Amino acid sequence: MAHIDLEVDEKQFPGITGPMRFRPETAKPLNELAEVLLRAPHSLPAGERELIAAYVSGRNECTFCCASHSAFAAAQLDEGMTLVDQVRADLDAASISAKLRALLRIAGAVQISGRDVTTELVADARAEGATDLEIHDTVLIAAAFCMFNRYVDGLGTFAPVGQDAYAESARRIVEVGYGPTTTARPSGEAAA
Amino acid sequence: MAHIDLEVDEKQFPGITGPMRFRPETAKPLNELAEVLLRAPHSLPAGERELIAAYVSGRNECTFCCASHSAFAAAQLDEGMTLVDQVRADLDAASISAKLRALLRIAGAVQISGRDVTTELVADARAEGATDLEIHDTVLIAAAFCMFNRYVDGLGTFAPVGQDAYAESARRIVEVGYGPTTTARPSGEAAA
Repeated sequence: MAHIDLEVDEKQFPGITGPMRFRPETAKPLNELAEVLLRAPHSLPAGERELIAAYVSGRNECTFCCASHSAFAAAQLDEGMTLVDQVRADLDAASISAKLRALLRIAGAVQISGRDVTTELVADARAEGATDLEIHDTVLIAAAFCMFNRYVDGLGTFAPVGQDAYAESARRIVEVGYGPTTTARPSGEAAA
Repeated sequence: MAHIDLEVDEKQFPGITGPMRFRPETAKPLNELAEVLLRAPHSLPAGERELIAAYVSGRNECTFCCASHSAFAAAQLDEGMTLVDQVRADLDAASISAKLRALLRIAGAVQISGRDVTTELVADARAEGATDLEIHDTVLIAAAFCMFNRYVDGLGTFAPVGQDAYAESARRIVEVGYGPTTTARPSGEAAA
């Protein structure tokens, strides 16, 4: 059970979806941020951006976010979950481009601390063809998932077991994205 | 110098302000999130919410965010910077309410990992009168600053030295808040 009364059926609204219904005022900018970072038109394919999110969430041991964004990445990558599992298990050996590997190394540094991003890591990514915008967005995706992961686990939310439970939300994210899916609580305003 | 070319004078746009000008598409939801969490009407005074932000930023050793939000907290707390310094130096001994201390302990746990928030920490806060909304927002403020801190430091942005440099932005935040202060870059769209 979550640490606070989210006023929803936690099985029906697992992970971040419960807190987002509880507090629609913060859900709005959070969903907008995810939409811009993970779904808006970009030189990095959506599947690769979701892979960064899944990789960071795995390193933060956030079950719900890691399973969700692994499913979202797999649904948008030709190689599917096999590649997601490879990257999460052994980044050095995974069958990905040198550019994506260098960006994931930056994301891995951000997961520990922003101060762990070195000029060498950035130079390596640039040498593999990464643009300033791609480096910027990699840092912010990784940083944002250090927030989302802490939000989901810090409130003790429910995470369904098994990858199958995340297939339906993967279909929805690929089709309609992170647009506002929350509505105000019937019980009234969240802000006191 | 920042890790990427932010296309601004970094002395004029230090810390997060440079990346926010570089990428207005992400600046918009980031500013909206800060406004709702730190400035919107709330049972926790804005000064106390800024104190949570400063406390987490200090623990993440993010010079720019810690100095900024310490200044924003001090400007909105009767006891000013003395109290901010007390809380950052020794939370157990600081002259704050038992409720705020319990919320700051939750924020400190979130700074390490969402999974470090225990039912005991939450029960302690509730026993001191914290509401579910206050606990929710404390978790999300702490989580959000784990993002903002990594964003600012992960891009290697410039942080002015000395508290005086942050006084002007404190005046602006108290007066007009985190409303959209960024404009699109003259060089064109950020998204590729």
